[in-house]
Amino acid sequence: MNQSVTIHYPNGARYLPKQAASPKIKSTLTTHGGRGMTLEQEINESNQYYLANDIAVIHKKPTPVQIVKVDYPKRSAAVIREAYFRQASTTDYNGVYRGRYIDFDAKETKETTRFPLDNFHQHQVEHMRSCLKQGGICFGLIKFVTLDQLYLLKASDLIDYWDHQDTAGGRKSIPKTTFDQIAVPVQYQLNPIIAYLDAVDKVI
Amino acid sequence: MNQSVTIHYPNGARYLPKQAASPKIKSTLTTHGGRGMTLEQEINESNQYYLANDIAVIHKKPTPVQIVKVDYPKRSAAVIREAYFRQASTTDYNGVYRGRYIDFDAKETKETTRFPLDNFHQHQVEHMRSCLKQGGICFGLIKFVTLDQLYLLKASDLIDYWDHQDTAGGRKSIPKTTFDQIAVPVQYQLNPIIAYLDAVDKVI
Repeated sequence: MNQSVTIHYPNGARYLPKQAASPKIKSTLTTHGGRGMTLEQEINESNQYYLANDIAVIHKKPTPVQIVKVDYPKRSAAVIREAYFRQASTTDYNGVYRGRYIDFDAKETKETTRFPLDNFHQHQVEHMRSCLKQGGICFGLIKFVTLDQLYLLKASDLIDYWDHQDTAGGRKSIPKTTFDQIAVPVQYQLNPIIAYLDAVDKVI
Repeated sequence: MNQSVTIHYPNGARYLPKQAASPKIKSTLTTHGGRGMTLEQEINESNQYYLANDIAVIHKKPTPVQIVKVDYPKRSAAVIREAYFRQASTTDYNGVYRGRYIDFDAKETKETTRFPLDNFHQHQVEHMRSCLKQGGICFGLIKFVTLDQLYLLKASDLIDYWDHQDTAGGRKSIPKTTFDQIAVPVQYQLNPIIAYLDAVDKVI
């Protein structure tokens, strides 16, 4: 098992040498929990852990594609020869945890002081709004990759910011300082790599 | 609105002229509720109704494909030029209804006296088993297309048959008569076309 000593600030942020903190310089450090994985890989691996240990059943939905042309060669698998990416009508992840419906999307930003709302799409926000009405547990998992910090942001808070972005006093982004106030930090660890259901426990 | 008078047997089955009831003769009749739609189309249309009326948020998952080669032509959409169908690791439909997690798969059979278990795949059964452990509401929507009859079969009943199929006295199929005893009939109607959540209400 590879374990490295990592220095954390009191707020849970990992200590990074100055150069790596600049978004312009590509960090060559291996990230702590994720060992260089993308947020999607971290979530998928955590979901496998949750599934294998009977803690939750949560899957990423397949990428929606519009299939136009398929070849059926003899004695081998069908080959899709023409297809197009479609806009998803939902968030990427959903499933069941303790009888409750879980629904979320994952976003990464290189920003360090704010999370731009245009990381989300209108249809994702509307989907979360609909799921909330049905009593689902909905949220965003938002990673500040440069800071190596991950947060669970409740969908209700996201929707608040979303709905007010075009009003007087509204903003096109959520300040990082707001995350420290209203979002739940998700820690990196060994198994699961990101224990985001611990953060879910804190918001339900 | 197209409405035709349809004669039903006391068990809810639609009256069909003899010739159409034979699986060997392709029926030219338009089906009642579905107006010639596949079960998948009927479910998708019903889900749209449930979503639009704030009754439930249930979607079909996209078909999983392994994308191998993508072209990015200038000034037009990316084109997937090589991709393969992958085996899904879950059922096709899930979502949230009254705070509860809903998970199901839809199957059509042309058989009239039994439902062959091999319509389901091992991984779908295992997925439903996992979801049941988490308190999800899991079932199969099973249509006897020749009889034009649709049933909700609880996952627990399906799993019972599944687990015993290779044991002494086990069967590779569920008799149609068993459906009339333990499954919940789903009626065709106008809106939604198949009110399968009414059947869900009866099993929770």
